[in-house]
Amino acid sequence: MLNVTARLDLMSKILDTLKAVVEDAKFDFKENSLHIRVVDHSHVAMIQMDIDSAAFDTWELDETSIAFEIDVVRNLVSLGTPEEMLNLKADEGTGMLNAKLGNVEGELRTIDPSTITVPALPPLDPKCKVHLSGNDFIRILKAAALGGDMMTLAISGDHFTVSASGTNSNIQVNFHKDDLQLFEYDNPAHSQYSLGYLQPLNKVIGRVETLEIGFGENYPLAINFAFHDGAVEVKYFLAPRVEGDI
Amino acid sequence: MLNVTARLDLMSKILDTLKAVVEDAKFDFKENSLHIRVVDHSHVAMIQMDIDSAAFDTWELDETSIAFEIDVVRNLVSLGTPEEMLNLKADEGTGMLNAKLGNVEGELRTIDPSTITVPALPPLDPKCKVHLSGNDFIRILKAAALGGDMMTLAISGDHFTVSASGTNSNIQVNFHKDDLQLFEYDNPAHSQYSLGYLQPLNKVIGRVETLEIGFGENYPLAINFAFHDGAVEVKYFLAPRVEGDI
Amino acid sequence: MLNVTARLDLMSKILDTLKAVVEDAKFDFKENSLHIRVVDHSHVAMIQMDIDSAAFDTWELDETSIAFEIDVVRNLVSLGTPEEMLNLKADEGTGMLNAKLGNVEGELRTIDPSTITVPALPPLDPKCKVHLSGNDFIRILKAAALGGDMMTLAISGDHFTVSASGTNSNIQVNFHKDDLQLFEYDNPAHSQYSLGYLQPLNKVIGRVETLEIGFGENYPLAINFAFHDGAVEVKYFLAPRVEGDI
Repeated sequence: MLNVTARLDLMSKILDTLKAVVEDAKFDFKENSLHIRVVDHSHVAMIQMDIDSAAFDTWELDETSIAFEIDVVRNLVSLGTPEEMLNLKADEGTGMLNAKLGNVEGELRTIDPSTITVPALPPLDPKCKVHLSGNDFIRILKAAALGGDMMTLAISGDHFTVSASGTNSNIQVNFHKDDLQLFEYDNPAHSQYSLGYLQPLNKVIGRVETLEIGFGENYPLAINFAFHDGAVEVKYFLAPRVEGDI
Repeated sequence: MLNVTARLDLMSKILDTLKAVVEDAKFDFKENSLHIRVVDHSHVAMIQMDIDSAAFDTWELDETSIAFEIDVVRNLVSLGTPEEMLNLKADEGTGMLNAKLGNVEGELRTIDPSTITVPALPPLDPKCKVHLSGNDFIRILKAAALGGDMMTLAISGDHFTVSASGTNSNIQVNFHKDDLQLFEYDNPAHSQYSLGYLQPLNKVIGRVETLEIGFGENYPLAINFAFHDGAVEVKYFLAPRVEGDI
Repeated sequence: MLNVTARLDLMSKILDTLKAVVEDAKFDFKENSLHIRVVDHSHVAMIQMDIDSAAFDTWELDETSIAFEIDVVRNLVSLGTPEEMLNLKADEGTGMLNAKLGNVEGELRTIDPSTITVPALPPLDPKCKVHLSGNDFIRILKAAALGGDMMTLAISGDHFTVSASGTNSNIQVNFHKDDLQLFEYDNPAHSQYSLGYLQPLNKVIGRVETLEIGFGENYPLAINFAFHDGAVEVKYFLAPRVEGDI
């Protein structure tokens, strides 16, 4: 049994974040929290999202797992205004999710949760850490896109630098340590990542005050952030593109 | 002889409404009113529009019929702002419509009115009637589109229900009789209609306070509404899609 | 050596104007001014732009010529807000232009200036002259587009008239001499021009108070205007389409 209600703006941020990486996702409802882990089909990008039940307006459930195509619920969310409420209900074994948004009701087909790949997130211990605002990171993503499909994060001296190289231009975004909320590293390091997996984050991180970025020499990128007053915690992982790869 | 002037917002609403069903239309100018009847080429959707001459700022004419491609005038209307005036003039037998919008003048090719199919509207006596706002109906159209290309209207008990079914979702919009401006029927009934013909009404009904909807068991849909303080009366008819049809 | 800084809104207007005619342009930096002359590949449209160094916030340079693909710099400009500053630096023989916008830095590939065609602008002495606002000209361009790909400018009696003819409509925009800032001609004249080259001016002339238009009987069109308080002077030339041409 599941019966949860949340504001549409919360629902859409959750779904948009997951959509950066996957089309379908499994939602594990626990006693006091909702857990989601997704990985893209080539196992390059992963998201781990944990949501406190306090973010929801209704939270009545037995522990259960439900999987569905993200866009099916996103489309419904798009019908309403940010402050409207979406109610989701499910009963064991029906294969359907009942969604209610004002006088609109949807019977949404779910997916067998056992068919969804749930990644085991690698333990990470990034040696380079910077904290900056969501808007700073949006500017990084837009600037890097001018240079191509890949971006390189580097840290050395007093600077954190993002760069991207294309046929006609090399773009760099430079941050002095004083312009960052946190700036920490042991040894100079740099690492390259595919922009395609990061670009969709644009939509969700605009108002995020602190984005925690961790990386290292040819090491995965970890981006941690929270929204809805900390009730939703997102850990985003992206494998490095080792230079020499095609 | 024809010489009429109207505000661009009125002209654009008239033309957008007709555009839901046809590309070309015949305009019958009578002594004190303008009459338009259009039917789509597969004879599924029809519109009957009657406009009181009071809606116009200039109205000098001998009774006449003029036909033209709707987009030719719509494009001209799109040049101006809502409060600007469009003047249309025509002389018998010239085959041209003279349009004037500030210092912009258009000579627009007309169509031989005798080549335009003018439908004989079927007499309708719908047993089920609901009245609701234009915005409620816009939400119905958007929600139904999530379910597919067809929507089913149904009435029974104390409820009027719109539903649409697709591969991954069934969508319902429910109205209790107390949420409707009018709720009347003799026997429970339901009927299915193609959304494609209704969707373009989105553009014009946003500010309509009362949309009168009539239907019945496998019976045509009738939607009546007015705008411009009642000076423009629209009757929209849509044939039912009998279940079992492809 | 080159080191110049300007507000993004100035940079984007300069680049958008040039983009109406070409993809690549050569920028001749002189002691107190920047000169640009471009011609489209079919030699139909030309722009001569002269910019006073006072329009720039930094202006330190040895006289030099730099050429680059307009979009490479435009993309960078699009990252910022209108009041932000773009700094451009170049050193002789590096083949690169260094661009700086806040903490974003671009290394932009330049083009060998000797490969860029620089037109010799024909001496013009148009006998017909009208001055009007940028907004009036935008309306002319939009209206003419409804009539087709070509527009005809004509002057006679007390009127300046722009017209365009298509399959279904002839569009005219009429100005009485009293509605124009200037109205001067010796003999009635008319001349036809391709709209395609003029349409992109839409983006830049919106706030221009006075657009000086000169033409004649089957004579080139000259459009002169200035922006940034007169610091940027633009002369736009367009060859007439002689009637009978295909």
